[in-house]
Amino acid sequence: ELGPMIVTAAIGQDTSLEDGDILVVTQKVISKAEGRIVDLRTVTPSERGLKLSIETERDPRLVELILRESKSLIKIDSERGIIIAETHHGFICANAGIDQSNVAGEHMVSLLPEDPDGSARRIREEVAQILGVRVAVIISDTFGRAWREGQVNFAIGVSGIDPILDYRGSLDKQGSVLKTTSIAIADELVAAGEMVMGKAEGIPVALIRGYRYQPSAGGVAYLLRDPASDLFR
Amino acid sequence: ELGPMIVTAAIGQDTSLEDGDILVVTQKVISKAEGRIVDLRTVTPSERGLKLSIETERDPRLVELILRESKSLIKIDSERGIIIAETHHGFICANAGIDQSNVAGEHMVSLLPEDPDGSARRIREEVAQILGVRVAVIISDTFGRAWREGQVNFAIGVSGIDPILDYRGSLDKQGSVLKTTSIAIADELVAAGEMVMGKAEGIPVALIRGYRYQPSAGGVAYLLRDPASDLFR
Repeated sequence: ELGPMIVTAAIGQDTSLEDGDILVVTQKVISKAEGRIVDLRTVTPSERGLKLSIETERDPRLVELILRESKSLIKIDSERGIIIAETHHGFICANAGIDQSNVAGEHMVSLLPEDPDGSARRIREEVAQILGVRVAVIISDTFGRAWREGQVNFAIGVSGIDPILDYRGSLDKQGSVLKTTSIAIADELVAAGEMVMGKAEGIPVALIRGYRYQPSAGGVAYLLRDPASDLFR
Repeated sequence: ELGPMIVTAAIGQDTSLEDGDILVVTQKVISKAEGRIVDLRTVTPSERGLKLSIETERDPRLVELILRESKSLIKIDSERGIIIAETHHGFICANAGIDQSNVAGEHMVSLLPEDPDGSARRIREEVAQILGVRVAVIISDTFGRAWREGQVNFAIGVSGIDPILDYRGSLDKQGSVLKTTSIAIADELVAAGEMVMGKAEGIPVALIRGYRYQPSAGGVAYLLRDPASDLFR
């Protein structure tokens, strides 16, 4: 149970949680807590997995897992062994979010949580139960992007916070109505989390305090572009 | 001159700048300071501009400016009037980064700075000259993304900071070598800047203190994916 562990860690470093705090929690620690770690030696590739593994020169057991975790494949670069997939949740990312870093054992890989919104909600509820404070929780993972070098943190699960900050209809400083601006604030908050979490340090939780956000019962789906209005697939 | 204005504003609110501070400065204030504001009534559309404006049902003068600011057009959605372009700098974004918000006058639009790295460098040098402190400067703009709803801040110019944080070759907590992780830290820093800048408030500068970054003489080009290795154009 991550909620109690996070509360204990926060108290241990003299930063007990307060109403309105935002917890950014990495996918990796969620996946570990939820048993979403797979030993590649237990995976038997299907025919489709074998074919794609030959095409991309990747480990057939990893490719098989990517196929199982995917709704569809978006782009394959055979020469460089790159597989961009859409996961069952609707995230578009390399290898369907499966990776090997910060997992013990050379044959072990982590899959994304099955229901990252649910994972976020559980932590939120546990914190509320133990401390009686209302926090928002965002689960983060590191994705690459089209057109840009380098990876950044993306929100893959949210609870208690509206992931979109909608300025449409509000006025700018000049008194003009902002027509198109809606900000993916959950993505920006987890990007800010990077400043204290790093990648190699293994720090699984960041605490953001003092940012006023819009509470919401909605989940991460608000951040996913409807395929019908998506120009890039 | 923005450097002196930023220094004055910082002193005025009792947060004078220190070595290692990071200034996030919005594109809009740079474009205003550099005269990159255009009155649409002064723009005469070319034949190509006229054609595209009919196809997309957009203002022909705006479409003409988009064409002038672009190296190439990446995607056009005629039905919804969306033009995704690659700017001369190499940024891929809607309308070549031209927009109307927070600009006075209904016919006025702002273009991106001609050389955002240069804009960042000038502010950095002015701050160094006035206060004798070394800060990093990142110019931010708000872009949409493939596959995800909502916009986020992106770095469009950098000075004094390596925009990529490269973990490749370092060890994770388990002692495994991280093979592929390099983080677009400049993009994450400007995303963090959103927390204090907002979109409608017209706050043009955020100050990030306490984050240790890698100094560099390089610019924003490190964040732009080489077209040859870009799967999405």
